[in-house]
Amino acid sequence: MSGPAVVTVRRAVRAFLSAHEAHLRCGELFVAVSGGADSLALTEAAAHVGHRLDVRVNAVVVDHGLQADSAEVAATAAQAALRLGADDARVVGVTVSGPGGPEAAARKARYAALRRALPAEAALMLLGHTRDDQAETVLLGLGRGSGPRSVSGMRPLDAPWARPLLDVPRSVTRDACTELGVRPWSDPQNADPRFTRVRLRTEVLPLLEDVLNGGVAAALARTAAQLREDSEALDALAGELYSRAEQRGELDVAELAPAPSALRRRALRRWLLGAGVRELTDAHLRSVDALVARWRGQGGVWLPGNFEARRSRGKLCVSIGDTAETGETGQPTTRGD
Amino acid sequence: MSGPAVVTVRRAVRAFLSAHEAHLRCGELFVAVSGGADSLALTEAAAHVGHRLDVRVNAVVVDHGLQADSAEVAATAAQAALRLGADDARVVGVTVSGPGGPEAAARKARYAALRRALPAEAALMLLGHTRDDQAETVLLGLGRGSGPRSVSGMRPLDAPWARPLLDVPRSVTRDACTELGVRPWSDPQNADPRFTRVRLRTEVLPLLEDVLNGGVAAALARTAAQLREDSEALDALAGELYSRAEQRGELDVAELAPAPSALRRRALRRWLLGAGVRELTDAHLRSVDALVARWRGQGGVWLPGNFEARRSRGKLCVSIGDTAETGETGQPTTRGD
Repeated sequence: MSGPAVVTVRRAVRAFLSAHEAHLRCGELFVAVSGGADSLALTEAAAHVGHRLDVRVNAVVVDHGLQADSAEVAATAAQAALRLGADDARVVGVTVSGPGGPEAAARKARYAALRRALPAEAALMLLGHTRDDQAETVLLGLGRGSGPRSVSGMRPLDAPWARPLLDVPRSVTRDACTELGVRPWSDPQNADPRFTRVRLRTEVLPLLEDVLNGGVAAALARTAAQLREDSEALDALAGELYSRAEQRGELDVAELAPAPSALRRRALRRWLLGAGVRELTDAHLRSVDALVARWRGQGGVWLPGNFEARRSRGKLCVSIGDTAETGETGQPTTRGD
Repeated sequence: MSGPAVVTVRRAVRAFLSAHEAHLRCGELFVAVSGGADSLALTEAAAHVGHRLDVRVNAVVVDHGLQADSAEVAATAAQAALRLGADDARVVGVTVSGPGGPEAAARKARYAALRRALPAEAALMLLGHTRDDQAETVLLGLGRGSGPRSVSGMRPLDAPWARPLLDVPRSVTRDACTELGVRPWSDPQNADPRFTRVRLRTEVLPLLEDVLNGGVAAALARTAAQLREDSEALDALAGELYSRAEQRGELDVAELAPAPSALRRRALRRWLLGAGVRELTDAHLRSVDALVARWRGQGGVWLPGNFEARRSRGKLCVSIGDTAETGETGQPTTRGD
């Protein structure tokens, strides 16, 4: 019943829960179960470890209603969860609709349903994302090119979401199910090449593994973990910089100027978001940063939503701009350099 | 003679040289020329921009001697460089040998020869790396998983090496050669699938572009640039932390403890490298960091080369360990947690 793969999954869950004991004070935890190998292996490990910590373990199955047999699949998953040791298992239905592709809409509906299933006092919903999911997420982020945040992948803990298996290969969860004698469900969407993530998994990652002689998923996950720590450090330091520089909604240039530009831009981002500016791009932040770092008396910088950031007497200030200056269309334009 | 692609390459070179004017004080600059499209387009732009800045432009061609016609290829490249405006062009021969794969050995020999070709007072050797080379470098780094440094790609300036074309797509340098009426040499090694970089270029990147709907090379280069700035900021802040914590070769735990772990590990790395410790891994640094962040009276941490890092009376110290403790093999082991 408990072969090496089961032991590996349990060890990952035990390490995670010990590191986040404070989140277990409510005496229960939840596991999101799809019926696939990842979530079934996770359920068994959560029940095994949780019970030793006197924590009740509840499985939640989301029925997306997207396939003809989805109710049956959900019921089977709930039964499997109970057989694997969960104290309770229930199915919640959702209606998938809304903007974005089918992946994005299903994802949004799923997370909303899981959140609703969580009692207010319960802290954690365990998710079965593996190291391979993390590798796919990093590649997706890289392709988007939206900066360090997007390549640092999923966070192990982003309460209530908890991902104890981010260092466990998907193959281990499959082996664990074999050892446990349960037959996981294979989501047909996981093989549908219309989904970007499926093509990353079935085409790009195997090719990268071949070209780079293996170890790519592990390397991507490791790099993501380090980048996440770097980003968290920079965010914390930028928060301190912001607090030192901020005075009644304005920023003191003398405080900002000596900091490295990566910190300055993070502090400026926080300041502008706080002022209500949305859809900020890296180019916007660099233009505002030029008011600090390359000051030669230039005019204000126009930002989305008709905001204007200006430098005046050693302070940066931001306000809704003078519409007369934005031209007849009323569209904000970017001034400055 | 100067179509849109030529103009794009010249603009990139002009922006780079204006940002690094101090490096032009010696009155000359060098360009590494292979005879391929990237380096020929770069040579023309460097001559065009350099001459307007009263800077002499010298081409250096490395003959690797790896193909039967390599001398002829090198001579042709030197002639092309002169025709494109270089004031001088010379061929330097190298012998490729040594450890590592054929790519690594050729690369090492090439950089050594280029460095020898550079007079002591001359500051810059321009290299023709494009945005596509940068994307390949980032993917290689990702596959290695050796952390943020390896995914932040090549630096635009790492004197004497200068890479003004890191934001210019390879297709633009090819178009520039067409506009200039020169026929670039096609290195047969650039199509040899035994080389990892060739497979990344010809198989992985085109597949990624297809799966992620284009823009991948640009996204990788953009992400690399941001990660590089983040790393530089963290390195600078870790340098300050190190200076505050360091006292006669020891580190003050009270100074280190409040800093984010990403900064602490960088400061510890600097300290240990300074003490002569080599081949430090992330796992080593995390073990030493546990002496600061998870202190419960644990013993010293063994590091490569029989070094031991210990905590004693609020200080971290490092010394050559007591060999009696390392066991009969004399191999360093890792203690602590």
